[in-house]
Amino acid sequence: MQVAIVLYPGFTSMDVIGPYEVLGRLPDTEVVFVAEHPGLVLNDLGSLTIEVVASLDDVPSPDVVVVGGGPGQLDQMADGPLHRWLRKVDRTSKWTTSACTGSLVLAAAGLLEGRRATTHWGGLEHLADFGATPVSERVVIDGHYATAAGVSAGIDMALTVAGLLVGDVAAQTVQLIIEYAPEPPYNAGTLDSAPAEVVESAMGLLSARAT
Amino acid sequence: MQVAIVLYPGFTSMDVIGPYEVLGRLPDTEVVFVAEHPGLVLNDLGSLTIEVVASLDDVPSPDVVVVGGGPGQLDQMADGPLHRWLRKVDRTSKWTTSACTGSLVLAAAGLLEGRRATTHWGGLEHLADFGATPVSERVVIDGHYATAAGVSAGIDMALTVAGLLVGDVAAQTVQLIIEYAPEPPYNAGTLDSAPAEVVESAMGLLSARAT
Repeated sequence: MQVAIVLYPGFTSMDVIGPYEVLGRLPDTEVVFVAEHPGLVLNDLGSLTIEVVASLDDVPSPDVVVVGGGPGQLDQMADGPLHRWLRKVDRTSKWTTSACTGSLVLAAAGLLEGRRATTHWGGLEHLADFGATPVSERVVIDGHYATAAGVSAGIDMALTVAGLLVGDVAAQTVQLIIEYAPEPPYNAGTLDSAPAEVVESAMGLLSARAT
Repeated sequence: MQVAIVLYPGFTSMDVIGPYEVLGRLPDTEVVFVAEHPGLVLNDLGSLTIEVVASLDDVPSPDVVVVGGGPGQLDQMADGPLHRWLRKVDRTSKWTTSACTGSLVLAAAGLLEGRRATTHWGGLEHLADFGATPVSERVVIDGHYATAAGVSAGIDMALTVAGLLVGDVAAQTVQLIIEYAPEPPYNAGTLDSAPAEVVESAMGLLSARAT
């Protein structure tokens, strides 16, 4: 099985590393990071650089496609080589997936029209701009599309897809290997659970980032 | 504030990216990846390469030190430049931290003697070899040491340390930004919760990896 993870400048690292750490541990699975412009790709925070060797043409038919998000997503919304590649590989992929605002790239490429989908809470409404139905759930499955909410939700999405791909025992084995039994010290991970002061602070940071 | 994250060949990516994604989003914080041998550093699964620019000497006094784990940890247990650097920076760090088997490197460097500490369930007993007291908890704080259980537990550790460093609201703001409200599709993330078949499968993979 081949998993292709798309990187672009300004990606959010956990968006891609969450699914990577899960899917990369499945039996007989190869993961390849792929970019429109291979080379050193810098993340959103400006302090993490991943080397990407494979170009889009190098990966013509992955079984699973993962697109993460991050502020760099804004530069991936116009039609072009990445969108054309996504539409092409989607025709043969078993799963086309996203974490965070990666689903907005899938949607902009035309893949989520008429589909239920989710994304980071900060961008949820924008899914409707591309004919998708925004759903405020952590992991949304519609057909062979699996979309996740913000950043850390990619871990839950990947475990869900892993179970559907290779069965519950293999997926649970990965969960145990990565000791994924979360105990967040706070209950502030959603707009509904976070204190008002925290919501205001997070919204301020996101709007500063988008400008 | 400066956060130094140690990388070495054979690191597990989520061990370091979990804490990175949390600590790197704190106000006025710079994160630097640091390695004994800077350059391109390849992870345990052999498909992720991170570029590290900073050498140990380049980072003489970080406020927070993070050491992740992974099978490559086995090659970091002998005394040498990394251990000497850890002992030196630990004298002035606000927090010396680890995820997964990174705590075994801290312990081997002599920093956890007489301390309560944790690590990946597969390595917990080995902490005692270095005079630490193994504790089967997800995040263990003792003095200015914060150690986490396996792989994904680094996220919980980093949020805990973030709260102690900069206060609850700033830590919760990061939690909301990364939408950390986990919903694992299975309950198999610990030895106690996983079905027997899953425990057997995971133990088989870990022992294959260590040989």
